[in-house]
Amino acid sequence: MLPVNELRNIIQEKSPLIHNITNVVVTNFTANGLYALGASPVMAYAEEEVADMASVSQALVINIGTLTKPVVNAMLLAGKAANKAGVPIILDPVGAGATPYRTETAQRLLTELDITLIRGNASEIANLSDENVKMKGVDSTAEVTDAAEIAKNVALKWKTVTALTGKTDVITDGHITYTVENGHALQSKITGAGCLLSAVTGAFIAVHDNVVEAAAAAIGFYGVAAEHAATRRDNMGPGHFQMHFLDALYDLKPEDIEQLISIHS
Amino acid sequence: MLPVNELRNIIQEKSPLIHNITNVVVTNFTANGLYALGASPVMAYAEEEVADMASVSQALVINIGTLTKPVVNAMLLAGKAANKAGVPIILDPVGAGATPYRTETAQRLLTELDITLIRGNASEIANLSDENVKMKGVDSTAEVTDAAEIAKNVALKWKTVTALTGKTDVITDGHITYTVENGHALQSKITGAGCLLSAVTGAFIAVHDNVVEAAAAAIGFYGVAAEHAATRRDNMGPGHFQMHFLDALYDLKPEDIEQLISIHS
Amino acid sequence: MLPVNELRNIIQEKSPLIHNITNVVVTNFTANGLYALGASPVMAYAEEEVADMASVSQALVINIGTLTKPVVNAMLLAGKAANKAGVPIILDPVGAGATPYRTETAQRLLTELDITLIRGNASEIANLSDENVKMKGVDSTAEVTDAAEIAKNVALKWKTVTALTGKTDVITDGHITYTVENGHALQSKITGAGCLLSAVTGAFIAVHDNVVEAAAAAIGFYGVAAEHAATRRDNMGPGHFQMHFLDALYDLKPEDIEQLISIHS
Repeated sequence: MLPVNELRNIIQEKSPLIHNITNVVVTNFTANGLYALGASPVMAYAEEEVADMASVSQALVINIGTLTKPVVNAMLLAGKAANKAGVPIILDPVGAGATPYRTETAQRLLTELDITLIRGNASEIANLSDENVKMKGVDSTAEVTDAAEIAKNVALKWKTVTALTGKTDVITDGHITYTVENGHALQSKITGAGCLLSAVTGAFIAVHDNVVEAAAAAIGFYGVAAEHAATRRDNMGPGHFQMHFLDALYDLKPEDIEQLISIHS
Repeated sequence: MLPVNELRNIIQEKSPLIHNITNVVVTNFTANGLYALGASPVMAYAEEEVADMASVSQALVINIGTLTKPVVNAMLLAGKAANKAGVPIILDPVGAGATPYRTETAQRLLTELDITLIRGNASEIANLSDENVKMKGVDSTAEVTDAAEIAKNVALKWKTVTALTGKTDVITDGHITYTVENGHALQSKITGAGCLLSAVTGAFIAVHDNVVEAAAAAIGFYGVAAEHAATRRDNMGPGHFQMHFLDALYDLKPEDIEQLISIHS
Repeated sequence: MLPVNELRNIIQEKSPLIHNITNVVVTNFTANGLYALGASPVMAYAEEEVADMASVSQALVINIGTLTKPVVNAMLLAGKAANKAGVPIILDPVGAGATPYRTETAQRLLTELDITLIRGNASEIANLSDENVKMKGVDSTAEVTDAAEIAKNVALKWKTVTALTGKTDVITDGHITYTVENGHALQSKITGAGCLLSAVTGAFIAVHDNVVEAAAAAIGFYGVAAEHAATRRDNMGPGHFQMHFLDALYDLKPEDIEQLISIHS
């Protein structure tokens, strides 16, 4: 088993600084989720300071959910500083494929920066893959097999680890692949569940050099927290789920993690 | 009775894409409210992509709560694309009258775009009406009668449906008028209750061509959700109300809606 | 004892308008906290309107948590209008010291504007003090004594009231000093607890001319609300704490305040 509890303990002890350049919808939830986990979130967007902030962080998370031109510039400046300082970068390509601007921006970030991990859903990841893989992915019915193929293609194409998350999550560097079978349907009824996952993955990568392992551990931990939270109340709705989920990130018990987690290689 | 439950079911089934260009205070709550309702929210602000996004949406919601010049430009670009594609536009003129910039921007949007529905409070709507109506509205004591007169004036002046919401809500195209008597005082103790209502109205209009009916149904449904949420706990405060309200948007029962809803024509 | 309950009652009655130019992470929580308290929050950022809005507000709160150049310009325009109109200004120097840009911006705002109150943590306040005090503060072990010395130095240096908040809060104009011993550890596990405190302090200053007293009362009230909220549930986590805390700002009983509050001069 991956050292999920050990990595979570290190995050709680060391409280790694996670620099987020993220979308305006999820900033609050992302910051609260990282605090609940035990990490130290910081948000900084100004071209005047992002390089300074990224250089002293333990991970940089860039999320293209509500892009504007100044934010793209800030991401490039922060990313180059992070690369120079050896700080890992997590890219969340929110909505890649939804508009040409998002797809092009995601590809530009992948071209100009050395990205440690891409975390997105099937559609977003497929839009960053080679054309033939993308087509096959859309046509095929064998979803998990396809997800793995798309994720591997993207990982190899961009020389990065790819985490394609959905009902089954696939984490791969193109050679080693983990799948995770955790999570709860209510995650899709709140905004920012994917965005916060990218940030949480950043915190795990900040404390563990093996990126595929760290990402798989983060995604398993996060899915267990969602499962645990969803059972804390009868007739759980999305409003209360948010609160129970933040609580679970904070105080989920190691034995619950061991019992519920489902990561396979 | 208006087909409130039927429209809500269609939203849950079809999950219409609602493009929001809204203020930074309420983005998260708006996205969560639309998800809870069953719609698909997307926020996009960049001049480079708003036309693409608005064109493929089922409704565009523009909210002037925290305007800046780039955001106004994005609203105009998105709005023109929406008009061209036949996508309905909902305008929430937050704070119209509070500063000249807000009033002028609201009027500019109404002049340059074909707006389907304006949703605001009495003061905001009055600031978009003809001068003589506005004055009378401020002086008079007959509040509901005045609200209806102001709403009708604004609807006819800008050739749009107007929803003036408050203790009694008035929805009118200048000829057909509905009033709604639902809602709860706690709505005024949380931020974004009005902004989310505008977005929810967008979701109802996205699935029903009769704009006055769709808006009245949305406003009635929303008010019932607030009433229901407010009774879920003793000593309900605004913190817990938010969560119960999101839950109610998600799982309010059809029979509760039928029992509590109060819409009159 | 300071007139804590009296000031809170005046806020609930008069509902002072608090203009916030704050960071994108905490806008929603800040607005909800001010509504729960009984104040009227407004957020406005556009250079075209901030002077108008600040002039008609009862307090202006500027927070440098997610600076960009247009926001700094807006803060200067709003601040100059506030100074001209006699509207008090609260500065929250989030992250001063974390990057040169933040430190320089905080100092620029203090130089160009007449700031009524600075509210920050020890590190932020120390970065606005004279060099010799800062050094001593970092080296010393006598934390509270140091905090008081740093706060006094900053108050005298910038001719303002300084509130340095932490385990013990110090509020001083350089001559009169209050300390507050309220609050709860969960405040550090959610984002925006400090930012909302700055805004709440603005509401108290809006209704009471004695700034040191108003700030000490606000900080004591806020700490009691946190303590009260933290005990409302077994196994309180940060998710639920947020909701209970907003509720406490709304309905905390006067007798609970009197019993728990710990302010000393």
